[in-house]
Amino acid sequence: MTAYADLKAHYDTIYRLEHLQSIATWDRMVNMPSGSAKARAEAQGEFEALIQKMQMDPALETLLRAAHDAELAPEEAANLALMSRQRLVASAVPEALLRRRAEAISAAYQAWVKAKGQNDWAAFAKTLKPLLVCVRERAERLGDALGLSPYDALLDEYDRGLTLKDVQALFAPVVEWLPEMIDAVIAKQAEETFIRPVGPFSIDAQKKVGIAAMTIFGFDFDRGRLDVSQHPFSGGTSEDLRITTRYREDQFLPSLLGIIHETGHARYQGGLPMPWRGQPIGVACSTSMHEGQSLSFEKQLALTPAFARLLSPLLVEAFGSQAAFEPDNLLMLMTRVNRGKIRVDADEVTYPAHVLLRSEIEPALIAGDVGVDDIPAWWDERMARLLDVDTRGDHGGGALQDVHWCQGMFGYFPSYLMGAMIAAQLKAAYKVATPDHESRAMAGDLSGYPNWLQDNVWLAGAQFSTGDLVARITGKPLSSSALKAHFEERYL
Amino acid sequence: MTAYADLKAHYDTIYRLEHLQSIATWDRMVNMPSGSAKARAEAQGEFEALIQKMQMDPALETLLRAAHDAELAPEEAANLALMSRQRLVASAVPEALLRRRAEAISAAYQAWVKAKGQNDWAAFAKTLKPLLVCVRERAERLGDALGLSPYDALLDEYDRGLTLKDVQALFAPVVEWLPEMIDAVIAKQAEETFIRPVGPFSIDAQKKVGIAAMTIFGFDFDRGRLDVSQHPFSGGTSEDLRITTRYREDQFLPSLLGIIHETGHARYQGGLPMPWRGQPIGVACSTSMHEGQSLSFEKQLALTPAFARLLSPLLVEAFGSQAAFEPDNLLMLMTRVNRGKIRVDADEVTYPAHVLLRSEIEPALIAGDVGVDDIPAWWDERMARLLDVDTRGDHGGGALQDVHWCQGMFGYFPSYLMGAMIAAQLKAAYKVATPDHESRAMAGDLSGYPNWLQDNVWLAGAQFSTGDLVARITGKPLSSSALKAHFEERYL
Repeated sequence: MTAYADLKAHYDTIYRLEHLQSIATWDRMVNMPSGSAKARAEAQGEFEALIQKMQMDPALETLLRAAHDAELAPEEAANLALMSRQRLVASAVPEALLRRRAEAISAAYQAWVKAKGQNDWAAFAKTLKPLLVCVRERAERLGDALGLSPYDALLDEYDRGLTLKDVQALFAPVVEWLPEMIDAVIAKQAEETFIRPVGPFSIDAQKKVGIAAMTIFGFDFDRGRLDVSQHPFSGGTSEDLRITTRYREDQFLPSLLGIIHETGHARYQGGLPMPWRGQPIGVACSTSMHEGQSLSFEKQLALTPAFARLLSPLLVEAFGSQAAFEPDNLLMLMTRVNRGKIRVDADEVTYPAHVLLRSEIEPALIAGDVGVDDIPAWWDERMARLLDVDTRGDHGGGALQDVHWCQGMFGYFPSYLMGAMIAAQLKAAYKVATPDHESRAMAGDLSGYPNWLQDNVWLAGAQFSTGDLVARITGKPLSSSALKAHFEERYL
Repeated sequence: MTAYADLKAHYDTIYRLEHLQSIATWDRMVNMPSGSAKARAEAQGEFEALIQKMQMDPALETLLRAAHDAELAPEEAANLALMSRQRLVASAVPEALLRRRAEAISAAYQAWVKAKGQNDWAAFAKTLKPLLVCVRERAERLGDALGLSPYDALLDEYDRGLTLKDVQALFAPVVEWLPEMIDAVIAKQAEETFIRPVGPFSIDAQKKVGIAAMTIFGFDFDRGRLDVSQHPFSGGTSEDLRITTRYREDQFLPSLLGIIHETGHARYQGGLPMPWRGQPIGVACSTSMHEGQSLSFEKQLALTPAFARLLSPLLVEAFGSQAAFEPDNLLMLMTRVNRGKIRVDADEVTYPAHVLLRSEIEPALIAGDVGVDDIPAWWDERMARLLDVDTRGDHGGGALQDVHWCQGMFGYFPSYLMGAMIAAQLKAAYKVATPDHESRAMAGDLSGYPNWLQDNVWLAGAQFSTGDLVARITGKPLSSSALKAHFEERYL
């Protein structure tokens, strides 16, 4: 075999092995009895160490050098470049630091669970500070290896090549137009009358509706499942897609829309290019592109008259006839806009405010410009300004609401808003490219947009950066313009 | 670290990793969508190769030699001896032969599924012949390494130290007393009248009864689960026990007794000695001892007046009141004896006949004294003689009924009957050791026997061979006497 073929085979091996880790993670969230947590953590930790050892195998260094001298097809060369880059990143951080960081995460996570219940910022702050030291040190090491600033090195982990400058350029206009937009939408919706559906909505019936919706959105149950977990997610592997939801008997919409959101993630994962499975070039482009797909399904496709029409008879069949299930009323129910403290409960119009705040404070925390003790005051001030919401004294509705930081995830939040921008910009491009999109959708066929995403986004794998891929597909650099236009069209 | 400590750590690592394989196997049987089968097979195959590589790590050879010269506690020395033995076995068979065998198994399994549906022995025989060549060759290699005959080497895989001579000595008396016993029991039962329960029995309600029964038999749901699969099994790991069943709405007893059977396997697995988890000395003693535990639960504990008393109100609660649910009637229902062609459907009295037949033909097949083409005629003759059942022309009810041979499993069948003997002999010893066993059981406390098994069998791990362990506990060598006495007491 050539050196490149050896490298490719090595990645294929790791991919096949990681299948088991993915299923074990899914099982942990969905099935595992609590008493098995310790053994499972040990098993998964051992496996992770093993995979890391395979990724750091010194033999790869020799192969990488040999492969660089070989003649390769352009895609192979791109794949090789990504392999070298991964190697660079993996060897940038000493093992001792990774262990310290893992311990700090464990302590911070446990403190967070407790502090959230007791509304005690100070208790959590004590564990976030040492974690932040580890996060910063790791970011510096990564940045040194890649020639990036520390925060850019963190952004880069989720979105190759993305910089704070990019994020700021993307988000600055949103800070300008968002507050007014929210005011206008809420004022307009105050005039509207709609009917609330009457529960309870049995979980069995909700599950049937969810599965029917997944089928409408092209989920292939021959290589995937829907289950229940406390925190909904899309997991498994490209060949065995596992999405989850949680149900409440008093409402069905949050679960249903969550299912459609995860269906978007799963279809992207399942639609990645088959010949490149397991290779660095064959994975998803970025977390923002992933979010762009889930929001394409949940927001761009589901919150429409076309889907409301398809959903209406499903609800009648599941829960019996109600006036609230008329398509026009359903659409109003699905597009309510309200100010609130909690990011994950927010509608698509107020959601950006939650991301803007976090995206602003994160780089300041990493740079040390804002201290951990200052976060709550900082949070209150921004929430009041951006969203006119008072979070003072309520840390659970403030800076203690997200799990990200206590898991060491800094640089992730921007992808939520970038995802919304991507979804809006992709949908707009799809509409231009597909003159009959509206008539097809209204006739009950929602497959046009997913098929177009498959051809343009999913099959591209990780060949391009987020910005490059969006520009290639839409002919324009990524911006918030399409998102603004989308809000105006749908809500004003 | 000392060489022995290094070896122990190596086994601990493999044990932790195999946790993931166990969960993936369980998931494959319980959850996996069919379209994911190929990717899962590749993932699990890759993982198996990785574990094999770890087991064959040349560094172990050096460590084993060094450890042999060290001073070790007796249990450590026993553990080390088992490690050496595993190494010997693992290195006895060349990889090329294992690959050929795996391919022959795959072909035979596929042919078996088809041939069973078409009652076509000849079609299956074509694939069993080359598989048998591989099985023989492997048995010879193992035998050479261990100083055993080929068939003894196969028996040894399931039951360390067991020989054909042992099996023949154990089973010869049963061939003598069984046919008459079956006649007598069936004649006696022909006089009895009992009431059949009336279905349908909803699956939800059956599941509730199953879980209640598992609780009675001490299953810890904090580290285990009950699920559904096409072929019931006990899987997972000692720390996360996963048992399965399958339900039919027209009957509840086969599923319920199956659940109790798997609960026995699971409790043994979960009760293995904690300090030795993952070490060769810490696993189950043998497949026959495993079967001895499952049959202790299913036959020795469940088919009793004491359990019938506990079950009765559970059934009334689940399915409503029926005269059939009276304890005396339930006991009659659970202990019906009937001749039949199918081993897995057989009651405990006729079951030994199915095993005797298979245990007689297997060594003859391995030795080449019986050819594959002769199996059906051989089968028909033995079934007529041992059980008075006519299997002529019905291969699905004959030699095509079991999956074992087409999976390359020769030497496994004896463990089913040895398990029944073990269960009877252990139960008899428990009764002697526990004068108040009957009154405690009739008062609703069935925990006595499992606790005794825990102390005597489960905590011994794999320290002793099956025969040695039974003799240590019961004071007598293993024989069929207790089983015969048990049948006489329960059925005559």
